[in-house]
Amino acid sequence: MDQRFDELKRRLLEINDLTSAAALLRWDQTTYMPAGGAPARARQLATLERLAHEQLTAAETARLLERLERESGSLPYDSDEAALLRVTRRLYDQAVRVPARFVAELSEHAAAIYQVWTEARPANDFKRVRPLLERTLDLSRQYSGYFSGWQSIADPLIDLSDYGLKAAEIRELFGRLRQRLVPLVRAITERPPADDSCLSHAIPAERQLAFGLEVIRRFGYDFDRGRQDLTHHPFMTKFSLGDVRILTRVRENDFTDSLFSTLHECGHALYEQGIRMDLEGTPLAAGASSGVHESQSRLWENLVGRSLPFWRHSYPAIQAAFPEALKRVPLETFYAAINKVERSLIRTDADEVTYNLHVMLRFDLELDLLEGRLAIADLAEAWRARFQKDIGIPVPDDRNGALQDVHWFSGPIGGAFQGYTLGNILSAQFFAAARRDHPGIVKEIEAGEFKTLRGWMRDRIYQHGSKFTPAEIVQRATGQPMTIEPYMEYLWDKYQPLYDLERDAVTAPA
Amino acid sequence: MDQRFDELKRRLLEINDLTSAAALLRWDQTTYMPAGGAPARARQLATLERLAHEQLTAAETARLLERLERESGSLPYDSDEAALLRVTRRLYDQAVRVPARFVAELSEHAAAIYQVWTEARPANDFKRVRPLLERTLDLSRQYSGYFSGWQSIADPLIDLSDYGLKAAEIRELFGRLRQRLVPLVRAITERPPADDSCLSHAIPAERQLAFGLEVIRRFGYDFDRGRQDLTHHPFMTKFSLGDVRILTRVRENDFTDSLFSTLHECGHALYEQGIRMDLEGTPLAAGASSGVHESQSRLWENLVGRSLPFWRHSYPAIQAAFPEALKRVPLETFYAAINKVERSLIRTDADEVTYNLHVMLRFDLELDLLEGRLAIADLAEAWRARFQKDIGIPVPDDRNGALQDVHWFSGPIGGAFQGYTLGNILSAQFFAAARRDHPGIVKEIEAGEFKTLRGWMRDRIYQHGSKFTPAEIVQRATGQPMTIEPYMEYLWDKYQPLYDLERDAVTAPA
Repeated sequence: MDQRFDELKRRLLEINDLTSAAALLRWDQTTYMPAGGAPARARQLATLERLAHEQLTAAETARLLERLERESGSLPYDSDEAALLRVTRRLYDQAVRVPARFVAELSEHAAAIYQVWTEARPANDFKRVRPLLERTLDLSRQYSGYFSGWQSIADPLIDLSDYGLKAAEIRELFGRLRQRLVPLVRAITERPPADDSCLSHAIPAERQLAFGLEVIRRFGYDFDRGRQDLTHHPFMTKFSLGDVRILTRVRENDFTDSLFSTLHECGHALYEQGIRMDLEGTPLAAGASSGVHESQSRLWENLVGRSLPFWRHSYPAIQAAFPEALKRVPLETFYAAINKVERSLIRTDADEVTYNLHVMLRFDLELDLLEGRLAIADLAEAWRARFQKDIGIPVPDDRNGALQDVHWFSGPIGGAFQGYTLGNILSAQFFAAARRDHPGIVKEIEAGEFKTLRGWMRDRIYQHGSKFTPAEIVQRATGQPMTIEPYMEYLWDKYQPLYDLERDAVTAPA
Repeated sequence: MDQRFDELKRRLLEINDLTSAAALLRWDQTTYMPAGGAPARARQLATLERLAHEQLTAAETARLLERLERESGSLPYDSDEAALLRVTRRLYDQAVRVPARFVAELSEHAAAIYQVWTEARPANDFKRVRPLLERTLDLSRQYSGYFSGWQSIADPLIDLSDYGLKAAEIRELFGRLRQRLVPLVRAITERPPADDSCLSHAIPAERQLAFGLEVIRRFGYDFDRGRQDLTHHPFMTKFSLGDVRILTRVRENDFTDSLFSTLHECGHALYEQGIRMDLEGTPLAAGASSGVHESQSRLWENLVGRSLPFWRHSYPAIQAAFPEALKRVPLETFYAAINKVERSLIRTDADEVTYNLHVMLRFDLELDLLEGRLAIADLAEAWRARFQKDIGIPVPDDRNGALQDVHWFSGPIGGAFQGYTLGNILSAQFFAAARRDHPGIVKEIEAGEFKTLRGWMRDRIYQHGSKFTPAEIVQRATGQPMTIEPYMEYLWDKYQPLYDLERDAVTAPA
């Protein structure tokens, strides 16, 4: 059995090398690649992904897997070997239904539409991407068509990012969350708005970046195993457990934008850098799901990075870094500014309270598109209508509407957004559990220390990679299934004093 | 036949995608990769190269190739199809003798030794690389062992970079060149040395880089299809004909170092950017050989970039760019400074006259190592002895000796250096032929125009990629085989006035 495990691992390692190379090609495409490189890059990505797919779905992989599954009955559920077989089986079953040429086609198409989007978005030109986006929708539906037994055509796509969850469950969960959020947003926006004028100072990019890097160094980001570069749309990517990179952007006139985007991507990176090194090269060496991943980016960005305890310690440092903006600004003003709640246009700029409304809108539009209730031709208009209804402000142009996020312009439609809200929910659930185990965590943060928090996350979540399913991780780490209560409690405890909300303004958690 | 050609091209395209991806992984390794990424990167490179090798040597490739060769008798020699078959046959014959696991082993070893070298060189620690370098020599000898019928064990390695040339021919050619160079070096170094103190001014890196980029923009480097980054050891690399990148380094206290290194790599890039776009994705879309490639880097760096006509036009611009260094320096002083001939330690810093002595030393040491007359254990010492004899100065440490070049620390020993001197010889031969066809070229350069020169190079050399062998290219472009006379003439015409050499000081060309 050992020899067969070695052979399976060797095959998985080759797949890992191909997909890691593809990840580097994509990283380069969004950072340094000159425009002339685009056509060949799309083709190269398609080739690498097709080869990885062919290797995963090869008859020999299937034979090895079946044989090992038969022999592995006695392996404990928690063992690495049993987990490797479970995860490989899942990936194999997902991949084997999809023809290799489809994988190459989707990949090539994604690279091509991404390139057009980088120009169409600033030009506010939805028409230019429309035919390509129609092809994306076709391909997304075609993908689900390779599977059977689903309730919603979105389910197979959701399985790719948040394994185990169905569209119907998410819709139900989001419905309950919306019921609680809408009155909270209303109550807050009826109060006088926070003054965030202190954030609108021009600060040179290098100084902004230097401050962000110093913060994530203290969070525990390992620069020997990572680096930060600039891009259009910030993300985290990984070429091995020894090379976990983050990407951010800089707005010269809004110096906290790059900071929080750095902290966000750092959260993703802490997760990947915290995976057990001996899982390297196997499919276990990756985050468990989009929702669990997002819980970490949101935790380090918001529950730590926008918290009062964090800034009680770090405020003098940021005042010294950006004196032209903050020298005369009291901590309380700054804290209120970085947590200003308002109805706004851009998801990634949205505050913690309205943010989930942006996500739900996208999730529902994805379902409408996939389930045939909405055509791409009507997407920009549907966005505007829904935005007015949910967020309560008009969308002036598509650049700030349906063109704003990279997701639909770099991968399938479906399964791309729910993870953000799942992540918000889980960030609070994990943080509450960590504080229960270590009540001193907040005091530590107030002293600029993050070891206990990071250690808890590493022990309960990071180190396991995807050995366990998302649901198992939540249960093991917090002792219960996913629940929105800690999140609502967190929002209330934070925003009630910030906006001086009255107890009966919304149905606060008991 | 058309269909079979398409199938062959499809297979070659996949190989091209894999090797292009590998090139990007290597580019990243030498620019942005954090140290922690090294072990996985070595493995990933090995995987990509093994897969490319497997695809090239697959039975199906051989069958297609044989069948097409049988059917292609009527194709004109100059047709793209006939050339594609010739070049694919050569690559196939080279690859099929070498087992795929050897390719992966060499690639992984090369990435590993490179990583150690980047630390061992600054630490002056030859011992640290010694065992790895012994392995490199073993692997290099093993490579040649897969071939038969060679006179020198270096021949199969030379074939990889300068197809068609044998170690014995090169040795003979270098012997004749040395006979002419040694008295020239002696005559020059007996004259008072040029004063190059004007070059030793601290200029911030960004300003140095900006000036170099402006020059290559005027040379015709297309930034939509390329970019420049920083690295240890400058090079040019390509991920497609639409993405041809150069890499340079900056020495703050020697502002012409980055400039000439940029011009050098730009010469390589102009070659690749000048290849016919419709050859993209085939093995024809690459330079013909290391020697022909180097002819272009040396032409743009030296015959243009260090020429008096070029600086007659550009001197005001560089004075304006670096006034703290050049404001009060006359053109003649600057021109003499950037062409100072002296016995020095580092090949890449060497002037045009002594440069080839550095190359010949390495070429001979490679032969000594491969042919068993020298052990790696004695390499550093052999370097010192030979250096004292050829260049006439002592080598103070291995950092400036056997550790100085990246080549032995990133690939096989053998075939790595002769191309530099072949390139010098050819640069003058090509330039003389271009001037014969267009006597106005020098006047154009004096006016800051490079179109006619670049156009001639593109028409005669660049556009063809590797459709023709190096020997064919030289013959077609200049009407004769490779000859050292134009090079010796060029050196004499340039350095005679610079050093006020007497006519009978050396045997000048007739």
